[in-house]
Amino acid sequence: MSSPSHSSPVSRVVVFGGTHGNEMSGVTLVKHWLRNPSELQRKTFMAEVCLANPLAVEKCVRYIDRDLNRSFSKEVLCSPESESDPYEFKQARVLNQKYGFGSCLFDFVIDLHNTTSNMGATFLRVSKDDILSLHMANYLQSSCENQSMPCYNYLIDIPKKDNIYLQNIGKDSLCLELGPQPQGVTRADMLSRMRELVNRGLDFLDLYNQGNEFPGFETDIYRVLSRVKYPQDSSGEVSAFVHNALQDKDYVPLKPGDPIFTTMNGEDLLYDGEADVYPTFINEAAYYEKNVAFVLTKKVSWKVPALKLETLAVHPGNPK
Amino acid sequence: MSSPSHSSPVSRVVVFGGTHGNEMSGVTLVKHWLRNPSELQRKTFMAEVCLANPLAVEKCVRYIDRDLNRSFSKEVLCSPESESDPYEFKQARVLNQKYGFGSCLFDFVIDLHNTTSNMGATFLRVSKDDILSLHMANYLQSSCENQSMPCYNYLIDIPKKDNIYLQNIGKDSLCLELGPQPQGVTRADMLSRMRELVNRGLDFLDLYNQGNEFPGFETDIYRVLSRVKYPQDSSGEVSAFVHNALQDKDYVPLKPGDPIFTTMNGEDLLYDGEADVYPTFINEAAYYEKNVAFVLTKKVSWKVPALKLETLAVHPGNPK
Repeated sequence: MSSPSHSSPVSRVVVFGGTHGNEMSGVTLVKHWLRNPSELQRKTFMAEVCLANPLAVEKCVRYIDRDLNRSFSKEVLCSPESESDPYEFKQARVLNQKYGFGSCLFDFVIDLHNTTSNMGATFLRVSKDDILSLHMANYLQSSCENQSMPCYNYLIDIPKKDNIYLQNIGKDSLCLELGPQPQGVTRADMLSRMRELVNRGLDFLDLYNQGNEFPGFETDIYRVLSRVKYPQDSSGEVSAFVHNALQDKDYVPLKPGDPIFTTMNGEDLLYDGEADVYPTFINEAAYYEKNVAFVLTKKVSWKVPALKLETLAVHPGNPK
Repeated sequence: MSSPSHSSPVSRVVVFGGTHGNEMSGVTLVKHWLRNPSELQRKTFMAEVCLANPLAVEKCVRYIDRDLNRSFSKEVLCSPESESDPYEFKQARVLNQKYGFGSCLFDFVIDLHNTTSNMGATFLRVSKDDILSLHMANYLQSSCENQSMPCYNYLIDIPKKDNIYLQNIGKDSLCLELGPQPQGVTRADMLSRMRELVNRGLDFLDLYNQGNEFPGFETDIYRVLSRVKYPQDSSGEVSAFVHNALQDKDYVPLKPGDPIFTTMNGEDLLYDGEADVYPTFINEAAYYEKNVAFVLTKKVSWKVPALKLETLAVHPGNPK
């Protein structure tokens, strides 16, 4: 493992809720924190909060024209504004202007989501080299170990240039995905759990800023392999649904021969792919429009180096 | 108890799904039956099926302009069409024209719904004098007794003239409300359960048409007392959420002193109303827009007389 290092303190932190307007834990928390920001004050910084898609929140829908959380490509962010753009493209540029490379790049972005799938607390990111985010997840996992809701590290492993997620606008980032919770519903258990995770995440950044050293560790990461589609009939209508035996079994290993779908005629369709895979986002409401029934992942072990803020020795007379 | 009687056979039966476009069990079943109607054939009748709110189904939303299942007042149905009418008012008139008193009044309407609340299989109706519907529910309850999903009789006790529900257009009716299921999600367990209930309901009507006698019985009905609203702060924002101790406890007796809400400050709000009441539709997604957290009911015992089709003795020479 390499020697503990990270270049700069984390002073600009923003917590987004309502990136999807019907995922209520984040919507509810951010609305609360906008009126009561003191909870987000730490010794070394004060986190900002932002309702990412206010119009979708108002209408309690995932999005107005396009999925905001797929609208942060460099192409969209850097193209000139056009009146005919989808609402979410405009909103992505507004957010990037305020928190992203459009102006003062924020140091850390936390993005709050819910899923209808039984995903517990999933810490989602788009790069396994994001050391700060991995240490935050590790801190959350170890400080919440005695809780009833399990925690998982999740990776959508894409090149930085292909990143289209809100997380793209921060220097470092973490997306919290809590479930199961129906769209449009605020469950008290999910709400208090997400609130605790955000608060402990901010505690972690505060400790880091104060020069605490976090030792290296090895962790499991669920890395996305492929998306499994619903079977369709000749007219394009979905002809089978997630099997009872698979429903709610997110992160439970799937073996060849296991039933994954039930057809309307009562027939079981069996899994015939690769072994040692872990299904996730099983029967997620928002993925029906893409025809995705669940997302297969592979569990990989990953070594994360130690972390400590590199403080520059400031000698008298040194230029600032 | 009065002598077994009911005046006429049930020959025109219609099953509605998608009255709310994001309640997927009914949407999925009706789409399937539209392509495969033979499952709804019985000896004495063939049930029709109808997607009640096709535009809402297409967009996977509860409704477009107004709640269709609150659009069946006599006032709406009998007023002249206007271009500026909400889509659902127009659709209510279309459905009434096809199945209601607009033309040949259908004998029995089955309306399929889902709820995000833990309501099991709830048989909902708007009149406790609807003998045929009560016998159907009793038949479903007794034929499904060994199943894991409990069945409940539910009553919104309003005068016939105040009925604004889709059920209003049939001579007799039953609304099936199955949960918990998130909006926009098809769970295989809910789907197969609803399918079985509809099929057994049709079996019951077929037996009735063939002259079977159904003895009188006594049953529990959960009758709506009042709707409990979310607490709001001075700006009108919801300031407390359904308490963990109440979540998913539909049909479990609520006692004065029981916690019902948690505030954002971690305070518990306690129930201080009438004893011996049963909360239902707890944390239903669709009721947030009306600010309704749950619906209190009273369990009442109700005697239902025996049921048998009154067959007219037809003598040779009698006028038809």
